[in-house]
Amino acid sequence: MLLQLSTWPEVENYLSYSTGIIIPIGSTEQHGPTGLIGTDAICAEVIAKGVGEATAAMVGPTLHLGMALHHTAFSGTISLRPSTLIQVVMDYITCLAVSGFRRFFWINGHGGNIATLKAAFAETYYHLANLNIPHADEIRCEIANWFMCREVYQLAKKLYGDQEGSHATPSEVALTQFVYPDLIKTATLDTQVASGYPIYGAADFRRHYPDGRMGSNPALATPEQGQQFYQLAVKELSNSYLEFIAKA
Amino acid sequence: MLLQLSTWPEVENYLSYSTGIIIPIGSTEQHGPTGLIGTDAICAEVIAKGVGEATAAMVGPTLHLGMALHHTAFSGTISLRPSTLIQVVMDYITCLAVSGFRRFFWINGHGGNIATLKAAFAETYYHLANLNIPHADEIRCEIANWFMCREVYQLAKKLYGDQEGSHATPSEVALTQFVYPDLIKTATLDTQVASGYPIYGAADFRRHYPDGRMGSNPALATPEQGQQFYQLAVKELSNSYLEFIAKA
Amino acid sequence: MLLQLSTWPEVENYLSYSTGIIIPIGSTEQHGPTGLIGTDAICAEVIAKGVGEATAAMVGPTLHLGMALHHTAFSGTISLRPSTLIQVVMDYITCLAVSGFRRFFWINGHGGNIATLKAAFAETYYHLANLNIPHADEIRCEIANWFMCREVYQLAKKLYGDQEGSHATPSEVALTQFVYPDLIKTATLDTQVASGYPIYGAADFRRHYPDGRMGSNPALATPEQGQQFYQLAVKELSNSYLEFIAKA
Amino acid sequence: MLLQLSTWPEVENYLSYSTGIIIPIGSTEQHGPTGLIGTDAICAEVIAKGVGEATAAMVGPTLHLGMALHHTAFSGTISLRPSTLIQVVMDYITCLAVSGFRRFFWINGHGGNIATLKAAFAETYYHLANLNIPHADEIRCEIANWFMCREVYQLAKKLYGDQEGSHATPSEVALTQFVYPDLIKTATLDTQVASGYPIYGAADFRRHYPDGRMGSNPALATPEQGQQFYQLAVKELSNSYLEFIAKA
Amino acid sequence: MLLQLSTWPEVENYLSYSTGIIIPIGSTEQHGPTGLIGTDAICAEVIAKGVGEATAAMVGPTLHLGMALHHTAFSGTISLRPSTLIQVVMDYITCLAVSGFRRFFWINGHGGNIATLKAAFAETYYHLANLNIPHADEIRCEIANWFMCREVYQLAKKLYGDQEGSHATPSEVALTQFVYPDLIKTATLDTQVASGYPIYGAADFRRHYPDGRMGSNPALATPEQGQQFYQLAVKELSNSYLEFIAKA
Amino acid sequence: MLLQLSTWPEVENYLSYSTGIIIPIGSTEQHGPTGLIGTDAICAEVIAKGVGEATAAMVGPTLHLGMALHHTAFSGTISLRPSTLIQVVMDYITCLAVSGFRRFFWINGHGGNIATLKAAFAETYYHLANLNIPHADEIRCEIANWFMCREVYQLAKKLYGDQEGSHATPSEVALTQFVYPDLIKTATLDTQVASGYPIYGAADFRRHYPDGRMGSNPALATPEQGQQFYQLAVKELSNSYLEFIAKA
Ligand code: NI
Ligand code: NI
Ligand code: NI
Ligand code: NI
Ligand code: NI
Ligand code: NI
Repeated sequence: MLLQLSTWPEVENYLSYSTGIIIPIGSTEQHGPTGLIGTDAICAEVIAKGVGEATAAMVGPTLHLGMALHHTAFSGTISLRPSTLIQVVMDYITCLAVSGFRRFFWINGHGGNIATLKAAFAETYYHLANLNIPHADEIRCEIANWFMCREVYQLAKKLYGDQEGSHATPSEVALTQFVYPDLIKTATLDTQVASGYPIYGAADFRRHYPDGRMGSNPALATPEQGQQFYQLAVKELSNSYLEFIAKA
Repeated sequence: MLLQLSTWPEVENYLSYSTGIIIPIGSTEQHGPTGLIGTDAICAEVIAKGVGEATAAMVGPTLHLGMALHHTAFSGTISLRPSTLIQVVMDYITCLAVSGFRRFFWINGHGGNIATLKAAFAETYYHLANLNIPHADEIRCEIANWFMCREVYQLAKKLYGDQEGSHATPSEVALTQFVYPDLIKTATLDTQVASGYPIYGAADFRRHYPDGRMGSNPALATPEQGQQFYQLAVKELSNSYLEFIAKA
Repeated sequence: MLLQLSTWPEVENYLSYSTGIIIPIGSTEQHGPTGLIGTDAICAEVIAKGVGEATAAMVGPTLHLGMALHHTAFSGTISLRPSTLIQVVMDYITCLAVSGFRRFFWINGHGGNIATLKAAFAETYYHLANLNIPHADEIRCEIANWFMCREVYQLAKKLYGDQEGSHATPSEVALTQFVYPDLIKTATLDTQVASGYPIYGAADFRRHYPDGRMGSNPALATPEQGQQFYQLAVKELSNSYLEFIAKA
Repeated sequence: MLLQLSTWPEVENYLSYSTGIIIPIGSTEQHGPTGLIGTDAICAEVIAKGVGEATAAMVGPTLHLGMALHHTAFSGTISLRPSTLIQVVMDYITCLAVSGFRRFFWINGHGGNIATLKAAFAETYYHLANLNIPHADEIRCEIANWFMCREVYQLAKKLYGDQEGSHATPSEVALTQFVYPDLIKTATLDTQVASGYPIYGAADFRRHYPDGRMGSNPALATPEQGQQFYQLAVKELSNSYLEFIAKA
Repeated sequence: MLLQLSTWPEVENYLSYSTGIIIPIGSTEQHGPTGLIGTDAICAEVIAKGVGEATAAMVGPTLHLGMALHHTAFSGTISLRPSTLIQVVMDYITCLAVSGFRRFFWINGHGGNIATLKAAFAETYYHLANLNIPHADEIRCEIANWFMCREVYQLAKKLYGDQEGSHATPSEVALTQFVYPDLIKTATLDTQVASGYPIYGAADFRRHYPDGRMGSNPALATPEQGQQFYQLAVKELSNSYLEFIAKA
Repeated sequence: MLLQLSTWPEVENYLSYSTGIIIPIGSTEQHGPTGLIGTDAICAEVIAKGVGEATAAMVGPTLHLGMALHHTAFSGTISLRPSTLIQVVMDYITCLAVSGFRRFFWINGHGGNIATLKAAFAETYYHLANLNIPHADEIRCEIANWFMCREVYQLAKKLYGDQEGSHATPSEVALTQFVYPDLIKTATLDTQVASGYPIYGAADFRRHYPDGRMGSNPALATPEQGQQFYQLAVKELSNSYLEFIAKA
């Protein structure tokens, strides 16, 4: 049940029996020579829809822009500053809290979003406590990183070993191939790929990761593997969502 | 050519022959008893993709959240504050300007976005002029409201007359029906529908427009009409885009 | 009745029978080789005072600084950033709302202010709804652009035709001549004057509008015409104000 | 020479021989039962014009809104928050610095502005140093409080002794009477007037200063005294301005 | 009684009989060739602790970073922007106001903090009035500048005369020597030392005060004098604090 | 070598051979019935000083206020909002980057700071890249959480097992006892202690963790254990710091 494809009376009706909502958040950032710039948003969105179907939960509009400042030396990356993203998250939650939602389950496709999301949640709880919204103190947010699902992680290790890397990974590329099987990109990938270097500013990042990959070999990805990741993530996050909204 | 479905080298290549980009911006807001909450984003996005195909232009990720504070008394509406949206637009443009983009063509689906977008563009030009980006003074933004295209407007008047109204209009509903023919919602619509009352705060808006419609009769909409609107808008905005990027 | 020339008990007394206030907003920006930098503020203020007298309404202090970032490549222009102006408008309205004012009639002298004002009103309604002010949901703002009054517009077209242009217009210059008949400036004006080019950043604006005028011939202006504009604007906006505060 | 009454070429010409500008800043706040709400702006503006004439200096538009949050429990007071005023001052100076101004002489009519102005200047110097404006490190601001001019202060003490008080003072009221001799307000003033209590929040202020005066007896004011204050302030601040711009 | 060295039940107990708290604020800024960069924080903290002991008052954590933008051209200076410091002060007070504190006695070691602190207090009172905190209108802040204590000032004048200067003064250096007798720094100090030049931006400051001192001769300082300053300041500020919290 | 206890020429000299600095950041928050409110700052500071001595590194002033909004329902907690803390960190780093520092090693005592610090670093790199600071792209920050040092963690598990918990832990309490052996607090601690419940808003936190502890038994702590933790943390973080500044 997608919020964007619902009417307001349908939302009102939904709120009569559930106060939970699933929110996909991705990023718009370079994913190496073959990965789609929208990878993180595509993955978060498709899994969120799957979880929404499996649990009959409402799914809100995807946040396509995340915190990817360190990727901005590559063409096409669009990042919010953390202070902007905090305001966006605060506005997003506040509006829905006014509507009556109380459980916000963020399905996240980008590791770089986690810190800012956590900061945003803390600031939002505090902000809501200062407004006159009934039950403001019952608002809860949870981040669910699909790529950190136990079975997703295990499958990635099994399939790719160290070549999974940490950015532009074969697992996320596989998932986008599953979603867009006609959009499988190829390029000659240097077999030597940088890894392990910490993330600082954008120019520094590009100096150390010249083609954008971090230790990964996305050429290993296939759409079939993508489907497996999809199914594992949907299963695990559906359970997580149901536990989240069931908690007293 | 969708930015989200491109790789960074593809974007770099695109920039070697064009600096233009199309950006869809919608809103997530009530659209009456039968209109989809995502109507404005759906319309902007589908038309932007059509224009992108027709003109071989890059299309950036859709901004699903716009300025809809006056709709927030209806369940499911999610609005950014104007000051938040200004920061989002500033971040969006700045990142792409650093990449080398210089012509930003915003295809807009929501009248309530126009004022804040204009404010944001002004602030962004000024901001960019203070940074060290080469050619910052050549950055240009244009807003293209699909619903204000001459032929779109004329067709809406011809088909619906006064029942077009100004929010939750049959024309925009028709367009969403064209995109999602399986999602045509029905409800008993009061034949008396408020209109002409100005927009102030959210509670006031709901008092005056109790079911969310502003003078419209969305029951008149059909998917076939939606297709017509789509084609007219794509044609007209494709011309607008080409003129925009051709201008010295 | 000018707020600045009243005492607080007088304001308190005024609030016992009216909650309306008129607020002039102008700009401090170049107006071509012969137009006063304060033109927009001068025009808004004098008309606001006229309307205030005609309707026995309170008139607040003029905002001399508006949104004129695109004029900042010309000496003497002072602009607020949109995000600053939003805060100013929010503070202005909030203080008066706490006093008990509920109808804010903004007489505006500068087209460039409109977008930011609209954004500011939306943000202010939302802000006030979150505070504990009684009747916050009854706060209403209206923008009245004197230069868009029907009869003002018609007279300008009749007197000047296309030479009215869109910035540093003979109509606004005439009005300042009516106010300051001793300050009529002259300069050799190029008969070729740029027009029709959209507004982007400041450097770009000056490149396209090298003397600051936009399609206008302010040499046509006379103080007598200014008086006519004054009278037409005061008459029309007095009616608008009375309708505004009478509305339920 | 008033900026608002100049054209941009006149400003450009002025900048060829002087980089100094005088900026009046007042406040819009209760001034007791008989004082005008605009007292501080009226005083600052008239003196600034006098100094501008005496020294052939440019005078910028008056900031009518200052930092008067502690007066907001009285009807008609309009205050900017300090954080808003800082942005306004930063925008004001930045625009003029881009034009080429380097010496900003702020003639201030309200004690409550001083702290925020000082904070704003510091933040502005820092901000300008980060931009690409030539000679940013030569920007200087000075606050000139007309009511703290030595001879003004001495005359007030001589004329009114302790009844000068510290807010809604007879000296400032006298000055407004000199400017607006037809607007002399009267009211029965309690001979017992609170004084010496520190300033905290707005509700607290009104509890301790129930009619808004702080230890003053504005009934002592006459327009003739106002003229004397005017002349003393103009003389002293003209000297201050000339010294300020002459300093290496 | 230091807040940092207390438990929350101890704070709760303290609040049952007192709502006062002492907050030391310093700065991290150059203090000439021999003065410690932390001088202002060291002085404020040690005196605050002394006052806390003498009056059995709670002492909050020291704010080490103040408003020292004009010193940032010297290595090691760390300053907050005024707009940042305002937010810090607002957060500091708001949290403690929620706990139940109502009297905030700021012991300040740096003249450059005063303006921003005053601005911050005004903004905080206003902010708190908009929240739902009980007794928000009873929150009061007071700044106590130890170096402006009457007897401190007199002793400094007596000991050092004009060589006290106004920054990197022997009195504050003496106080740090009393606290850190093993850290007495020496350097050849030019006997000619700049003084009397106003403070503008950082580069300008360093041009006029090349070694950082403002008219002072810190070589005159001794730890014994530091002890005297300490005792005088603690005595006077203890009285001030007790008066402050006793006031109705 | 403490920045606060150095002179600016000493800092300048230090910069001639090192660009590294250690910055302790803690929090001011409830630590259960017996833990000091300043625990996190005390631990971070003492370890930072130890590392500074062991590595001859400069140590900057401690940030006593961190992100502890979820603890604000307990008396005495003082938290910055994440958006405030981001500005503080940005100002802190920017000033030192202007001085010439390039390696910022943040020794952190509070898990709740990590997310906001990471967000702040990202925003700061981006901010610095837009300024004119030489070598802005070489600025690097690293967070070192003393409580996550491998041997610290192992010792805590060995000494306390599950009773280590995750807030108001015996390990951090032991460390404060080592620093302040005279300040060992006792209280009757409920043997049943909540644990495992996620962190949302402040009121919710207190409902679930009524005495502030999260699964811990701080009564197990001894000063001797504190010394062990101190030594292990200093040893490990000294190595980390040296690696950090040695990295190309
Ligand atoms: Ni990714
Ligand atoms: Ni719509
Ligand atoms: Ni104009
Ligand atoms: Ni006054
Ligand atoms: Ni000092
Ligand atoms: Ni802790």
